Amino acid sequence: MALIVQKYGGTSVGSIERIKNVARRIARWQAKGHRLVVVVSAMAGETNRLIALAREAQSHPDPRELDVMLSTGEQVTIALLSMALMDMGLKARSYTGAQVKIVTDSAYTKARIVSIDEARIRQDLADGCVVVVAGFQGVDDSGNITTLGRGGSDTTGVALAAALKADECQIYTDVDGVYTTDPRIVPEARRLRTITFEEMLEMASLGSKVLQIRSVEFAGKYRVRLRVLSSFEEESEGTLITFEEDENMEQASISGIAFNRDEAKITILGVPDRPGIAYQILGPVGDASIDVDMIVQNVSHDGMTDFSFTVHRNDYQKTLKILEPVVKHIKARGVESGDRIAKVSVVGVGMRSHAGIASTAFRTLAEEGINIEMISTSEIKISVVINEKYTELAVRVLHKAFGLEQPG
Amino acid sequence: MALIVQKYGGTSVGSIERIKNVARRIARWQAKGHRLVVVVSAMAGETNRLIALAREAQSHPDPRELDVMLSTGEQVTIALLSMALMDMGLKARSYTGAQVKIVTDSAYTKARIVSIDEARIRQDLADGCVVVVAGFQGVDDSGNITTLGRGGSDTTGVALAAALKADECQIYTDVDGVYTTDPRIVPEARRLRTITFEEMLEMASLGSKVLQIRSVEFAGKYRVRLRVLSSFEEESEGTLITFEEDENMEQASISGIAFNRDEAKITILGVPDRPGIAYQILGPVGDASIDVDMIVQNVSHDGMTDFSFTVHRNDYQKTLKILEPVVKHIKARGVESGDRIAKVSVVGVGMRSHAGIASTAFRTLAEEGINIEMISTSEIKISVVINEKYTELAVRVLHKAFGLEQPG
Repeated sequence: MALIVQKYGGTSVGSIERIKNVARRIARWQAKGHRLVVVVSAMAGETNRLIALAREAQSHPDPRELDVMLSTGEQVTIALLSMALMDMGLKARSYTGAQVKIVTDSAYTKARIVSIDEARIRQDLADGCVVVVAGFQGVDDSGNITTLGRGGSDTTGVALAAALKADECQIYTDVDGVYTTDPRIVPEARRLRTITFEEMLEMASLGSKVLQIRSVEFAGKYRVRLRVLSSFEEESEGTLITFEEDENMEQASISGIAFNRDEAKITILGVPDRPGIAYQILGPVGDASIDVDMIVQNVSHDGMTDFSFTVHRNDYQKTLKILEPVVKHIKARGVESGDRIAKVSVVGVGMRSHAGIASTAFRTLAEEGINIEMISTSEIKISVVINEKYTELAVRVLHKAFGLEQPG
Repeated sequence: MALIVQKYGGTSVGSIERIKNVARRIARWQAKGHRLVVVVSAMAGETNRLIALAREAQSHPDPRELDVMLSTGEQVTIALLSMALMDMGLKARSYTGAQVKIVTDSAYTKARIVSIDEARIRQDLADGCVVVVAGFQGVDDSGNITTLGRGGSDTTGVALAAALKADECQIYTDVDGVYTTDPRIVPEARRLRTITFEEMLEMASLGSKVLQIRSVEFAGKYRVRLRVLSSFEEESEGTLITFEEDENMEQASISGIAFNRDEAKITILGVPDRPGIAYQILGPVGDASIDVDMIVQNVSHDGMTDFSFTVHRNDYQKTLKILEPVVKHIKARGVESGDRIAKVSVVGVGMRSHAGIASTAFRTLAEEGINIEMISTSEIKISVVINEKYTELAVRVLHKAFGLEQPG
């Protein structure tokens, strides 16, 4: 008999019919003798509806009041799911974030969980109840309602699993696990039975938007056994996120090919190579709250180097404007940039112990005549920036080159 | 500089545009130097939408979970109104019932307020904030969300006014006060500038659905100065509910003519007149949660009497069915009943000291050939049951007979 935390996203609870499906699934788990804590998101579309309403009321909605509003989305779902469970004869009880209570800091719209008081949940579980908790929300020290930001329900699920020392945290979504790459691009893409925590981090941040990145970090920190499953398929075991790298390493060197077409690249040419220059360039960008992803700087020649980085495509024009005075000030030669690029990444903890991964990747792309514009690597990832039009081709040939269509 | 509690109902906050109107009205009050606490309902239609959703999830929605759901309606409105106020440059802060906190008993869907902690509100008021509080809801001792039942936002307003010792509690609604009768039936009906608390109670329970009855009781108990105003008209002073009967008595003997077409009457004929018989008849009715309104029993002849009462028309058939075995058991002669009736009431504290009110009423009806089927009186009210088809006629002639079209 295990203690399981299940999290169902907005699509999984998007209608009464779907909520009833979720209730039936929960009933089957309980019938097997498991104790269940269920975290739910707002019904699909509800959060956007509320944000639109808020914007009508105030041009820039006050963050505290926005959280008061947004938190109602999950509050409706916990009640509906509890009712659906009771309608099937189960005992169920709902809790808002404030009721649990899930204490956060006071950073409205992007609060972080500070502590969880799991006493009431334990008591309800002992009473045979299914405990239904609102995801995405908490309460600060002064009793103000907070939200954790988009995707925060995953974090609620993992944090509850950590606090309760649950046997597993199951994240139900509209895909049945983590794939070697996007099946819409490579039909042979295969669901991974396991993936390591670090690979998952790389996959998530690269656009395999299965799990919210913060929840994965949280799971890693508290060693929560995390599983991604489909709420629409009954059979699949989904993908288990593990911490045992050794096991995985034996299986395959590479876990998947991720890609991202949302970025733009900017290169400052002929930058005088002196201490502090990177900060002089990226400081003003960071001050404007623009996130920088890849940063590449190669060795210098004659005291000059090129400095490249990528930003989200939405921030592209703004970043160029910010850099204008900077380029003059540091006396760089000029700027070269483009937003028709894609980042393609080969991810796998296996590359730590398998030589030749990088050269295989580069050779594969070269054979197709795909020019590599930037390269950045970490211990378990090789990312290249290429022309956007080659995205699908690059993903397909890399997927094949590393034999990802074969069962691991 | 007064401390004023204002309450706006669902129609008054039924759209963003209307919420902004409310915000402008609040701004004008604050500009006059008043401190303001504002209680709001859910946007019109929202509560019904949520109830419909709940019924889809569970045939008989669990009361605790229903309250979790319903309380989201006001939670959205407090955030929107606070945002609208801030958008106009005012300081504002919202509170849910649980945040205030408004402690209630645990009678879900019809909870009663036990206590209010007004410390945070006072602090915000001192900071120059408009404090926006969710009506209709509270929290019990264990932190469960409760609601006060339909119309409970009025009660929240009055209870807050009592706790804060506010100078006035203003209930904004879609009518601009209490009228001598329904202006749709008597075009000469006149808005009352004042009405006593007791008259208001009689008027409210008789169908002049301006204020929720419990909020009026609350206002009476804590001597809260209560005013009913229109949220759509700027000029009208509305109707003030007073506790100074003496003043009123001098003005006029009668305040208004109320009526109700939602009832059905049932008479048990030939009831043996012995102790306990009323309970034998009404006990089973009450056990079925059917509310009984008028009860009339006259003196008996030869140990037999007739026992009459009225119930809501929706409960008519059910009540007749419940009475079948009762009538047999008590050996009554039979049952006479009808649901095409109306109750018309003459209300006024003045009748305590003015003789002849009843006879004027009865003569007026007789002159129009309207037969009186039942009569029931209290200290400040005379109610008659008549054939439904005479309702408008009876209201009009009584309104005229007591000179209600003349300014008091």
